[in-house]
Amino acid sequence: MTKRTIGGAVIGYGGMGNFHSEKMQTVDGIELIGVYDIDPKQNELAKSRGIHAYASREELLADPRIDLVTVATPNDVHKEIVIAALAAGKNVICEKPVAMNSAELDEMIAAANKYGKLFTVHQNRRWDEDYLTVKKIFDEKQLGSIYRIESRVHGSRGIPSGWREEKEHGGGMVLDWGVHLLDQMLTMMGDAKLLSLYATLTNITNDECDDGFTVLAKFDNGVEWIAEVGTCNYIEMPRWYAFGDSGSVIIRNWDCEGEIAKIYNRGEDDVPPIQAGAGLTRTMAPRNEKTVEKFPVEKVKSDWAEYYKNVIATLHGEAEIVVTHDQQRRLMKLLEAVFESARKGEVIHF
Amino acid sequence: MTKRTIGGAVIGYGGMGNFHSEKMQTVDGIELIGVYDIDPKQNELAKSRGIHAYASREELLADPRIDLVTVATPNDVHKEIVIAALAAGKNVICEKPVAMNSAELDEMIAAANKYGKLFTVHQNRRWDEDYLTVKKIFDEKQLGSIYRIESRVHGSRGIPSGWREEKEHGGGMVLDWGVHLLDQMLTMMGDAKLLSLYATLTNITNDECDDGFTVLAKFDNGVEWIAEVGTCNYIEMPRWYAFGDSGSVIIRNWDCEGEIAKIYNRGEDDVPPIQAGAGLTRTMAPRNEKTVEKFPVEKVKSDWAEYYKNVIATLHGEAEIVVTHDQQRRLMKLLEAVFESARKGEVIHF
Repeated sequence: MTKRTIGGAVIGYGGMGNFHSEKMQTVDGIELIGVYDIDPKQNELAKSRGIHAYASREELLADPRIDLVTVATPNDVHKEIVIAALAAGKNVICEKPVAMNSAELDEMIAAANKYGKLFTVHQNRRWDEDYLTVKKIFDEKQLGSIYRIESRVHGSRGIPSGWREEKEHGGGMVLDWGVHLLDQMLTMMGDAKLLSLYATLTNITNDECDDGFTVLAKFDNGVEWIAEVGTCNYIEMPRWYAFGDSGSVIIRNWDCEGEIAKIYNRGEDDVPPIQAGAGLTRTMAPRNEKTVEKFPVEKVKSDWAEYYKNVIATLHGEAEIVVTHDQQRRLMKLLEAVFESARKGEVIHF
Repeated sequence: MTKRTIGGAVIGYGGMGNFHSEKMQTVDGIELIGVYDIDPKQNELAKSRGIHAYASREELLADPRIDLVTVATPNDVHKEIVIAALAAGKNVICEKPVAMNSAELDEMIAAANKYGKLFTVHQNRRWDEDYLTVKKIFDEKQLGSIYRIESRVHGSRGIPSGWREEKEHGGGMVLDWGVHLLDQMLTMMGDAKLLSLYATLTNITNDECDDGFTVLAKFDNGVEWIAEVGTCNYIEMPRWYAFGDSGSVIIRNWDCEGEIAKIYNRGEDDVPPIQAGAGLTRTMAPRNEKTVEKFPVEKVKSDWAEYYKNVIATLHGEAEIVVTHDQQRRLMKLLEAVFESARKGEVIHF
């Protein structure tokens, strides 16, 4: 039996819309039928690249060749467009953050259920190789019981200009990179229950929207997770850092440069104190080389086309969707808790 | 006029007692008269090094040649010994943490006032070169307005064995390295008001006492300060990290290896997005080299003998004591707040 090729379209042809259009043009089993952007210049850009551009959103949604619509617009119009696409009988991928808040998301999920269509979110960074590498180390207990995972993304450009700086459009870094880092956290922690979180935001370049944040979350599996985004960091801290009772790992960048240290005898005897600064320390003396082994991190290979392949297979009834409604709801509730914690200056308990 | 040499003595001749004895033997203006330890073996060790060891604490305190007693015993007996020494008419340096809690400290300060003697604490790490280097960068506003300072000390041996593992003796890392890192924080922040703190403790190698902690403190000068001690970190994170609105600094170790980045144009135009993991990012794209300059950190030189020199000059009426009662009290209240925050899982507001 030959499987039908999925007809795809993209609403919103900016940076991420272009990204999705390219995916639809390169992944087997899906074909890009066309795009639509509210800005005529973007439609002209699409045409110049040989891509059909619709005259209106309505025209796009009325095209029966289209099975799947990817929504890549500013955040504040996701809800309206996603629901319109579902009502038109289309399956929908929405860019992240899926909605401005969990109430909006609930309306979107209700529409997906009402119209019986697939509705999922482009949480593409679950396919990041650095993330998958740390996840493998965690899942395989390579560091023993894990006590701490730190996930940082540091840049120095502030918030990108445009709607991402404006609160009414869902701007700010919690709703940008935060959506990725906190989705990775929830996914890696799996069934572990989130107990509490404390969040602080920065407003260095922008009063209206957060241009960075730090979240400290505690889970009932004993893990403390620090997630941090900075856009005024002219020197970057490592992308990942974690330690457990039998080792530590550092991953410096997206290319997974870094190392693992595994321990063979934590309590060394007769350690002489070292001079460190204006004092002595035995506690912080370096380890005997015989008790610790360091080796480079082995990168887990990944292909972000897997995201589209999963959507296509799900539409053919051959797979379960990876990014589920429950996960979207859990993440959106978490993002709300981050804002609540920062606003009140208090820990949120779950 | 020839100044009288100060007669010094040390009670408690363990690791730090030996450190103080060496100081008294090498700093001009002070002479080591003798030591006393409750453990006869330690007194024998002192004698083998040509140092007079008293037969009892009482005998030491009764020696009129002694002007200054340094107390370097386990934490839980500081109060009793310090008050006995003050009552005997001695000036006193006490090892850190000065007391088990602020109520004990208040008794000690009352005794110092009653007997009219100097009473100070060995906060030696105010003379650490790495700390003084960061402090200079902060004081000179080399990074503009500072938003974040991160101060970490990572080791991998757990808590040193002995009384430091026992709660009743004041064990654990908050009362060990924490006293240093949080004293450095308060000293560098000067008159800025501490607004709030959130603390989490680890108990990886030891149930009774914390073997590490993370404190996130906010000050009314806009600084968020993270202080962290870890003793199960087989790979170390940098000793210091900070950023302000015109630059960042990283200092990797006690030798001040690290760099400063200074920024000339934060908002670059027309930055192309980069591929990073399974997605694109403009926010996290590396900077144009023309807009940022990096150079090595210049280490501030220091000499921890300055601590003793300040005490000696104060005894001669020629200086003000650097480590004051008010500072001791403020730090002890902060340490109590750290324990309270961790116990309750809540933010403490000041």
